[in-house]
Amino acid sequence: MIINIPNNSDFSINNIPFGIFSTAERSKRVGVAIGDQILDLLEWSKAGFGEVESSYFDQVVLNPFIKLRKEITNQLRIDVQDWLKQDADKYNEYRSLFVSQMDATMHLPIHIGDYTDFYSSIEHATNVGKMFRDPENALLPNWRHLPVGYHGRASSIVVSGTPITRPSGQVLNSETKAPEYKATQKLDFELEMGFIVGKENTLGHPISVDEAEDYIFGMVLFNDWSARDIQKWEYVPLGPFLGKNFTSSMSPWVVTMEALEPFRIDAPKQEPQVLPYLDSDRSRNIDIKLKVELETPSGTNTTLSNSNFKYMYWDQAQQLAHHTVNGCNVRVGDLMASGTISGTTPESYGCMLEISWGGKKPIIISDGTTRSFIEDGDTVVMKGYCQKDGIRVGFGELSTLVRRSMD
Amino acid sequence: MIINIPNNSDFSINNIPFGIFSTAERSKRVGVAIGDQILDLLEWSKAGFGEVESSYFDQVVLNPFIKLRKEITNQLRIDVQDWLKQDADKYNEYRSLFVSQMDATMHLPIHIGDYTDFYSSIEHATNVGKMFRDPENALLPNWRHLPVGYHGRASSIVVSGTPITRPSGQVLNSETKAPEYKATQKLDFELEMGFIVGKENTLGHPISVDEAEDYIFGMVLFNDWSARDIQKWEYVPLGPFLGKNFTSSMSPWVVTMEALEPFRIDAPKQEPQVLPYLDSDRSRNIDIKLKVELETPSGTNTTLSNSNFKYMYWDQAQQLAHHTVNGCNVRVGDLMASGTISGTTPESYGCMLEISWGGKKPIIISDGTTRSFIEDGDTVVMKGYCQKDGIRVGFGELSTLVRRSMD
Repeated sequence: MIINIPNNSDFSINNIPFGIFSTAERSKRVGVAIGDQILDLLEWSKAGFGEVESSYFDQVVLNPFIKLRKEITNQLRIDVQDWLKQDADKYNEYRSLFVSQMDATMHLPIHIGDYTDFYSSIEHATNVGKMFRDPENALLPNWRHLPVGYHGRASSIVVSGTPITRPSGQVLNSETKAPEYKATQKLDFELEMGFIVGKENTLGHPISVDEAEDYIFGMVLFNDWSARDIQKWEYVPLGPFLGKNFTSSMSPWVVTMEALEPFRIDAPKQEPQVLPYLDSDRSRNIDIKLKVELETPSGTNTTLSNSNFKYMYWDQAQQLAHHTVNGCNVRVGDLMASGTISGTTPESYGCMLEISWGGKKPIIISDGTTRSFIEDGDTVVMKGYCQKDGIRVGFGELSTLVRRSMD
Repeated sequence: MIINIPNNSDFSINNIPFGIFSTAERSKRVGVAIGDQILDLLEWSKAGFGEVESSYFDQVVLNPFIKLRKEITNQLRIDVQDWLKQDADKYNEYRSLFVSQMDATMHLPIHIGDYTDFYSSIEHATNVGKMFRDPENALLPNWRHLPVGYHGRASSIVVSGTPITRPSGQVLNSETKAPEYKATQKLDFELEMGFIVGKENTLGHPISVDEAEDYIFGMVLFNDWSARDIQKWEYVPLGPFLGKNFTSSMSPWVVTMEALEPFRIDAPKQEPQVLPYLDSDRSRNIDIKLKVELETPSGTNTTLSNSNFKYMYWDQAQQLAHHTVNGCNVRVGDLMASGTISGTTPESYGCMLEISWGGKKPIIISDGTTRSFIEDGDTVVMKGYCQKDGIRVGFGELSTLVRRSMD
């Protein structure tokens, strides 16, 4: 290998995720994460490597590269892998093609046309249904028949490392029964994964469940920040709006579906049987180990959740087939997120709403204080990786500091 | 006047709306509608008129022009008006700067970053609440406290003249109580107006209700096509999704807020008093006469609705202040629609769901057949104009043919 890659690195030779980086000397461009380095694809292609014109890497987003389609982007990924497998003594010759991740700033990697959020974890939907609606009928009648989803806000999606500001808005005062304007008291994360659309369909022409994965370029970690008190007051009848659109955060490196292929796993059985347009082979889930940590200003670190993407009741092919069954068109760069990914136990719940059960069961964190929701100064860190047969492919981390409200 | 403008033209000298057109000889570019002509702003600016560089008109969308901000775009509009006031005998000299609207193809005028749909007509919200939920408590508790809204799909917004295809999807079979896949049997229009954002705020920084109108460039007619059977089954708990995202349609000419200024009218009183961040001076409604017509393949024409934008309970400044109160950022070209605009009588209801009261009261149209919802081959035409003191400013029309499902 031309560079040394630590054994536990998310960015192994089997990964080759794409992102947009810059340094003091290098303007925004496409790079590949490898170990603790970034391979500068602009300089690499200018040096004559790979079959993709360097102009596709001289970009502020990945969309033009992704639009080349999988035949090209997959070959480029293989070419990068082969090139990296050169002897280490070649490093000195090519050191200008590498940048340390320590020295780079990562940017939002995608121009996101439309952002859709699903609600595809049965454990999460059941838990929220119990708390917000009816404990006896937590899952609504449609939930097992279609992947429930809604449109979110694309403009406010930011990359890991971008601090968020505690939002204010209308909240119902439970004593006066009147709404008031205030900073949210129930700021929450939502542990999600997102996929990036890599191919367009034409308006009016659905994507079949069997074709759907050809339309998916890759995946990211996603945090669908939520203000539960704002959400609860506003969300009937048209769904979440200001309770969520103040910010969502995503990880900077887009991991391709090809890198994730070795980690496929069977999906949970669906009962009742779904309609034919959603009938997938149920082998398309992915075993991605997910973790959420809370860092406090004093430096303590508490694990809030250990979950897994394999729990998803609805897979990504079903989500995309459903989204387009009415002819809705998708565009390269669209982002579709999973919804909160919860497992069956409190240790695997994917948001504070579930972990603290709506604030009724605050948890004690490492510094001895308690948390029902996220406090000012907290940093929420999400991590995700696949590991099997000694191969590791990961997403790095998605880290977001919460700043106090500006009111 | 350099050209003759019919007295009843929507596109009077007082209007000067902006759009994107092309002809067999002219590639997509910015134009202004005047009478039954289009002034080609690219050629006009190249001929030395106006203060805006011609490159801003050599564009496939209006966004770069709108980004110049109102100081520039308003002056350009005045310069066009002054120039058009030349003597008619100048026409021969400048005839190459005009294109007949008959010879032009109109295109979607805006790159829409995010699309938001509000629900701001109290009559519509009340009628839908009676049908979908509880006749005794039709308006939900939050409705009078905030302008309820949701995020819609930007990718599937098309311009007037683009046919739509009847969508298919999941619908609950009321006899078997199981969902089935089928073409919608309840295809509906929604008579709306939309506004185009003309100025950005920074993420985390709300727009105050008093500043809000400075962030609005202009308005269009908007048809938020809906499949009521798909919508009814899917919309709980996260709101409309496939019942609406198959297509929305908009008119091609963007009428500036400055052109609409003479037609301001007081808004309905809001009870109870809204929170201070929404407290506008209630003089910001606009008297826009709206009409919906149904054309059948046999050529008959039936007026389905006569409504008015003045009915809106929540005004556009309140919508934008609410949308950003949590720090959500808006971008130039974002589209925000009003929600269905209904008046107090069935003749002024803004969608078939209300007009036929969920299909219980089908209406008889001019060809003697009945309609509960929109049938294949129907064309829905929306029109809107302001008129006062002999001045008319209008939106032209938004016309959409419905094609049969491809199943």
